[in-house]
Amino acid sequence: MIRTAVVGGSGYSGGELLRLLLDHPQVEVVAATSRRLAGTFVYQTHPNLRRRTTLKFTSPDQLGPVDLLFLALPHGEAQQRIDEFGRLARRIVDLSADFRLRSEAEYQRWYGAAHLAPSWLPRFIYGLPELEREAIRSADLVSGVGCNAAAVILALLPLALAGWVDAEAPVLAEVKVGSSEGGAEGNPGSHHPERSGVMRTFSTFGHRHTAEVMQAFGPQDVSLTLTSVEAVRGALATVHLRLSPGLRTQDLWQAYRKAIADRPFLRLVKESRGLQRVPEPKILAGSNYADLGFDFDEGRGRVVALCAIDNLMKGAAGSAVQCMNLMHGWDETLGLTFPGLHPA
Amino acid sequence: MIRTAVVGGSGYSGGELLRLLLDHPQVEVVAATSRRLAGTFVYQTHPNLRRRTTLKFTSPDQLGPVDLLFLALPHGEAQQRIDEFGRLARRIVDLSADFRLRSEAEYQRWYGAAHLAPSWLPRFIYGLPELEREAIRSADLVSGVGCNAAAVILALLPLALAGWVDAEAPVLAEVKVGSSEGGAEGNPGSHHPERSGVMRTFSTFGHRHTAEVMQAFGPQDVSLTLTSVEAVRGALATVHLRLSPGLRTQDLWQAYRKAIADRPFLRLVKESRGLQRVPEPKILAGSNYADLGFDFDEGRGRVVALCAIDNLMKGAAGSAVQCMNLMHGWDETLGLTFPGLHPA
Amino acid sequence: MIRTAVVGGSGYSGGELLRLLLDHPQVEVVAATSRRLAGTFVYQTHPNLRRRTTLKFTSPDQLGPVDLLFLALPHGEAQQRIDEFGRLARRIVDLSADFRLRSEAEYQRWYGAAHLAPSWLPRFIYGLPELEREAIRSADLVSGVGCNAAAVILALLPLALAGWVDAEAPVLAEVKVGSSEGGAEGNPGSHHPERSGVMRTFSTFGHRHTAEVMQAFGPQDVSLTLTSVEAVRGALATVHLRLSPGLRTQDLWQAYRKAIADRPFLRLVKESRGLQRVPEPKILAGSNYADLGFDFDEGRGRVVALCAIDNLMKGAAGSAVQCMNLMHGWDETLGLTFPGLHPA
Amino acid sequence: MIRTAVVGGSGYSGGELLRLLLDHPQVEVVAATSRRLAGTFVYQTHPNLRRRTTLKFTSPDQLGPVDLLFLALPHGEAQQRIDEFGRLARRIVDLSADFRLRSEAEYQRWYGAAHLAPSWLPRFIYGLPELEREAIRSADLVSGVGCNAAAVILALLPLALAGWVDAEAPVLAEVKVGSSEGGAEGNPGSHHPERSGVMRTFSTFGHRHTAEVMQAFGPQDVSLTLTSVEAVRGALATVHLRLSPGLRTQDLWQAYRKAIADRPFLRLVKESRGLQRVPEPKILAGSNYADLGFDFDEGRGRVVALCAIDNLMKGAAGSAVQCMNLMHGWDETLGLTFPGLHPA
Repeated sequence: MIRTAVVGGSGYSGGELLRLLLDHPQVEVVAATSRRLAGTFVYQTHPNLRRRTTLKFTSPDQLGPVDLLFLALPHGEAQQRIDEFGRLARRIVDLSADFRLRSEAEYQRWYGAAHLAPSWLPRFIYGLPELEREAIRSADLVSGVGCNAAAVILALLPLALAGWVDAEAPVLAEVKVGSSEGGAEGNPGSHHPERSGVMRTFSTFGHRHTAEVMQAFGPQDVSLTLTSVEAVRGALATVHLRLSPGLRTQDLWQAYRKAIADRPFLRLVKESRGLQRVPEPKILAGSNYADLGFDFDEGRGRVVALCAIDNLMKGAAGSAVQCMNLMHGWDETLGLTFPGLHPA
Repeated sequence: MIRTAVVGGSGYSGGELLRLLLDHPQVEVVAATSRRLAGTFVYQTHPNLRRRTTLKFTSPDQLGPVDLLFLALPHGEAQQRIDEFGRLARRIVDLSADFRLRSEAEYQRWYGAAHLAPSWLPRFIYGLPELEREAIRSADLVSGVGCNAAAVILALLPLALAGWVDAEAPVLAEVKVGSSEGGAEGNPGSHHPERSGVMRTFSTFGHRHTAEVMQAFGPQDVSLTLTSVEAVRGALATVHLRLSPGLRTQDLWQAYRKAIADRPFLRLVKESRGLQRVPEPKILAGSNYADLGFDFDEGRGRVVALCAIDNLMKGAAGSAVQCMNLMHGWDETLGLTFPGLHPA
Repeated sequence: MIRTAVVGGSGYSGGELLRLLLDHPQVEVVAATSRRLAGTFVYQTHPNLRRRTTLKFTSPDQLGPVDLLFLALPHGEAQQRIDEFGRLARRIVDLSADFRLRSEAEYQRWYGAAHLAPSWLPRFIYGLPELEREAIRSADLVSGVGCNAAAVILALLPLALAGWVDAEAPVLAEVKVGSSEGGAEGNPGSHHPERSGVMRTFSTFGHRHTAEVMQAFGPQDVSLTLTSVEAVRGALATVHLRLSPGLRTQDLWQAYRKAIADRPFLRLVKESRGLQRVPEPKILAGSNYADLGFDFDEGRGRVVALCAIDNLMKGAAGSAVQCMNLMHGWDETLGLTFPGLHPA
Repeated sequence: MIRTAVVGGSGYSGGELLRLLLDHPQVEVVAATSRRLAGTFVYQTHPNLRRRTTLKFTSPDQLGPVDLLFLALPHGEAQQRIDEFGRLARRIVDLSADFRLRSEAEYQRWYGAAHLAPSWLPRFIYGLPELEREAIRSADLVSGVGCNAAAVILALLPLALAGWVDAEAPVLAEVKVGSSEGGAEGNPGSHHPERSGVMRTFSTFGHRHTAEVMQAFGPQDVSLTLTSVEAVRGALATVHLRLSPGLRTQDLWQAYRKAIADRPFLRLVKESRGLQRVPEPKILAGSNYADLGFDFDEGRGRVVALCAIDNLMKGAAGSAVQCMNLMHGWDETLGLTFPGLHPA
C-alpha cells in the first residue's frame, strides 16, 4: 500500500483519478485538495463517489508528505510550485501540460511563454505507457498526456513502430471531441444551448497537442484539426497519412497485431460484419482502452488510421494510474478493469 | 407597416422575436437594444440572421419613439422602467414575468418582492391568445407568458372550457423542459458536461409559473413539477387531473375538437397507429403550434392531458407576435407560418 | 467458484450480465447462448468485452448443467421452457417478466394471456434485494424486476416502510426513460431520427410494471406514466403521493436514513447547495446504485419522491447479480463496485 | 402557379419538399405518392404538416400530368421509370443519385452497376445552383445533389473559382454527418441505443459522392471520409487542401467575398470574436443556407475549408426548390426564407 494525494481534485481529471484510486487495491488516498471547495465532501462535487468515500477536500496548503503525488491542476500551476511538490513526494505524476515536452524551446514555441521550471523538463518521462513503458517503469517523475495527442499517437503507433510512415507526406489528424475536454469550469461556449449538438471545427492549425505528436515520432509534417461534437466524453482520431511504397493490407494487419500484443489496453477493431466494425468512443466511457482501426488504399498508399479513447481515461487519469502501476512494478492493469458499457 | 423595436435583443426570446419580425410583412424593425453588445451586428449574436439583416445593437438609451415596443429584458427590469417605455410607444408587449399577474398581492407572494409599478399591473392583458384573444384585440399593453404556464394552461384548456375539471382533486402538471428555458446567460448548471443528458427534477413545489395557471382557471389545487431533459428547445406538459363524473371518451374528443376549431395554433395529436401518435416538442422547434393530446381512464375519471410547445415560440416570442397581430387586426397567423421540421 | 450460464446473452440485459459476471471473483461463465448468433464471438455483439473474453455464443440447445442459470430471454419464452431450465440448474435468476407476479390471476390481468407455467409462479421470489433481501438469501428461484417498477418501488420504499403513505390518495409515478428500455431489437420508433431528442409520453395508464408496484405495497391506487427522453440508459421516477397527517420534514429525513442504512446500494441525494442536489440517472450508467430524493410540502401533506437508476443495472442485470450474491451468502456488493462516472 | 407532384413523398427528402412546396406562393401540390402509405394523411407521416394540409398519399400509379415532377425515390428507382415520368411532366427534378453523373462509365464505376437509362444522363443538369445556375435556368431536367458532395463542393467553390487549388496535392474532405442522411427506413445501425452519441468513421475511401466532387472540379485526387456524429440533421465538411504558391490570407478573403456576392444562400462565417465564429450546421436546420469558412496557413500553403449545411435542405430539398425557382425565372429565394434557429 502506498499513500497518495490528488492535488486539484475538483476538476474532471481529478475526479476520475479519485474514482480510480479509491478502488485501487494498493493505494490509500490521504488527501484531495481544492482551495475553493476545502471543507466540502468530495462526493458533493463528484456525485458518483457518494457512499464511496467520506473524504473532504482540503486546502493545498495543508498537504503533507506522501509516497506519490498526482497533480491535476490547471495548466501552468504545477510548474510554479514544482519545487514545493517535489519536497512532498518522491514520485509525481502530473496530468497538466507543464512537463510533457522535454525541450524548453519547444515549450516556449507552442505555449507562447517561457517555462518557469525548465530544469525539471528533462527529468519527466512522457506518461503514455504504450509509448514509454520501459522508461516509466524506472521513473519517479511522469507527465500526463494531451488527450488529443494520445489519440493521434496511438492511431499512428503500429505504423510508426513498423517504420512505414512516409515522412515526405503530411499527416493530417482530424480529431472529434466531447465537451469534457474543456474542463469543469464553464465558459460562454460551454453553455448547453450553444454547445449542444454542435459540429464545430474550432481548431484548424497549430493546436498545442501537435507538439506531443511530433516529439513522439520525430520530424514529420503533422497537423491536428479539432472538431467539437455532441458528447461529454470521448475522442476519435481519424488520421490520414501515406505509407512507404510496396505494402499490402495483410502487412498492416501484422503490424497492428504485433503492436497490440503486449500492450494490454490496445484493441484492434476491424470487423467486416455486424454493427461494431470500427472504433467507437462511446463504448469506452470510463475505460482505459484505446481502440484502433485502419483502412488502407493499396493503390495510393494511403491509410486512414483510427483511434477511439475516453479523453478522461486513456487521455488523462487512466494513463496516469497505469503509469503509477508501472512505476511500482504492479500489474499494469491494476484498478483499471472497467471495460466500458454497451449500449452507451 | 408599423415601426417596432426590441428591447433586450441579445437574449434567446429577443433573438426569436427578431427572426420573426424581420420576416413579418407588416413590420419594420428600427432598433434592437443591448447595452453590452451595442455596436455589434445582431447576426454576430444570432448567427441564423446573418445575411438577413445588417442591424446593429444599440444602447437602450438611444431608443426613440415607435409604434410598438417589445420588451425582452431579464425579469424585474421592465417594471423599473415601464413609465419610460410607456412614453416611447403606445403599444407594449412585455415578454418578462413583470406584468403577467393582475394582482399585486399574488405577485408579491410568488416573486417574494413588492412590485415596483403596481399601478400598471391591471392595465396589462395576459398574452396567451388562446386564452385571451378578444381582450388582446383591443389591448395596448400585453404581457408575455411563462413557457411552462403556457404549456400547462393549453393542456388544460379544452377541459377547462368545457367546465369538466374536478376542482376537488389536485392538478399535477409534470413539465419536461429543454435548456433554453434558462436563458442565454450561462451558469454552472448549464455547463454542457453537467447539463447534457440529464433527467433532473429541479423544481417540485412552488414554481412561479403556477401562479399564471391559477390565475387562468381560478381556485384549484395546482402543482407544477419541472424536470430538465436533454433538449435545447421544447416543453412537454403531462398533466394529471380528475374530471367530474359521467363523462365518456367521446365527450372529450368533442371538447378538444371544439377548443381547437377557432384557435389556429392548436392541434390535436391522438393517433392510434404510426409513429406520430402523441404531441412531441421536437417537431415544433421554431413553430408557434401547441400540440395537444389526452388519455382518459373512464373508470377512475382520470385524465392525462398533454401539451407540447417550443418554449421560445408559443411559450415566448411566437405568442408575442401573435398578440401583435391581434392588436392590429391582422391575420392572427401572419409571419408565424413556419410549421417545424420532420425529422428533427 | 460457481459455474453459470447466460441464456439470451445477445440482448442488452444479457450483455450487462456478461460484463458483470466475467469480472466476478466467484463466478465462471461457461456459456452464453444466442440461437441467431451462435458461433460468433460475444465481443462482436458487446464490443466493450473485446479482449476480455473469447467466449462465443452457443445455441441454447447445447446448454449443459450449471450451478446457476441466468435467463435473459424475451418476455414469454422463459415460461415456455422453465421445466427444461429447471433440470439444468438448481438455481435460476430470470430477468424477464415471466415470474415476477406471484398471482396467476394478476399475470393474466396485466399480460392479457394465461401463464404457461403457473405452478412455478409462487416458487419465485421477486428479485429486488432492497425489498426482499431475506427471502432471496434462502431462495433458489428469483425473478428479475421491471426497470420502471424498480425505480418506483425504491422511490416509495422509505415512506412505505415507515407506513406513512396515505392509501386514500392516488400515487402518480411519472417515469422518464432512455431508449435501452426498448431492448436490442430495433423498431420504427427506435430509428434514430425519430427517437432522438424526444419528450414522448408513450404510456399514460395501465403499464404492466404497475402490477409489480401494487404487489410490493398492497392495495393502493397506483398509476405509472412513462415518458421517453433523450438518453440510452437511465430511468428517473418522480412520484407524487400524499402522506398521513402530522408529519414533518425531519421525520422524512429519519425515514430515509433508516431505509438506506443497511441497504448498500441506496443513497440519499438531497443537497441544499452545489450542482449535484438531486438524483440524476446519467451519473449512474453502469452502476447498481439507486439514488433517492424527496421534497415534502408539509402544508398539503404531499411528497414528490425521486429515484434514479440505470435501467440495465439496478433495473435488470445489477439486481440479478446482487441476488446471486445473496443466494450464495457472499457480500452483497461483490462484483458490483463500479460507481458510475462524473461527468457523464 | 404551376402544378407539381412529389413522387416518393414519405421519405425525409420528400417530406422536406412537401413542407417547402405547400408554403410556396407559385406552386400547387396536386399529389404526393407513397405506395405503402396510400390513403393515409401526409401529416400522419410528417407530423409538422398537421393542420397545414389534408393531402393524402396516393399510389404512384394514379399520377396524372403535372407541370413539374419532383422525384424523391430510393436510389435506382427513378432510372427504371424515367420514360414514364418524362411523359407526365415536361420538367423533372430528381433528388436521387440516378442522374447526377453525366458519364455512363463513371456511373458504372461508382455505383457498380450499369445505368438503366443512360441516354437520359447527358440531358440532366447537376442541381447545385451555386455551381450550375445558368444551365439550370434553361433546363427542363435537373438532378439532385449528394448531400456530402454538396458540402464539399461548396467548401471548395470560392477557391476553385479562383483557380487556386493545387492539383498536385490531395484534397481530403472530412465530413461529419447526422442520422437523417441514412433515410427514413430504419436499420440495425440506426437503432437509437447504437446510433446515439456516436463518433463513427464509417466510410474512409471510395464514398460515391466523391464522383460528384470530381465531376464538378475536374482531375484532382479527392477523398471523402465520413464520420457519423450525434445529430439528426446537418453536415459539416472540413476540407484539407493545398493552394498554389504566393497567396496571402487577404487574397482568400477576396475570393470568398466574390464567390458569395451573387450567390444568395452562401454566407461567410469567419469571426475573430464571440461564440459564433465558424460555420455550424445546427443553426441551419430547415434552412437553405450554406455557411462557409476557412483558415489559411500561409507558410505551408495549406487551407482548411469549411462548409456547414442542412443535408435535407441545401443537400436535398432546398436546392431542388431553388432549382425549380430558377427554371421558372422566379426569384431564386422564393419559399426558401426560413433562416434557421438560434439557439438550436
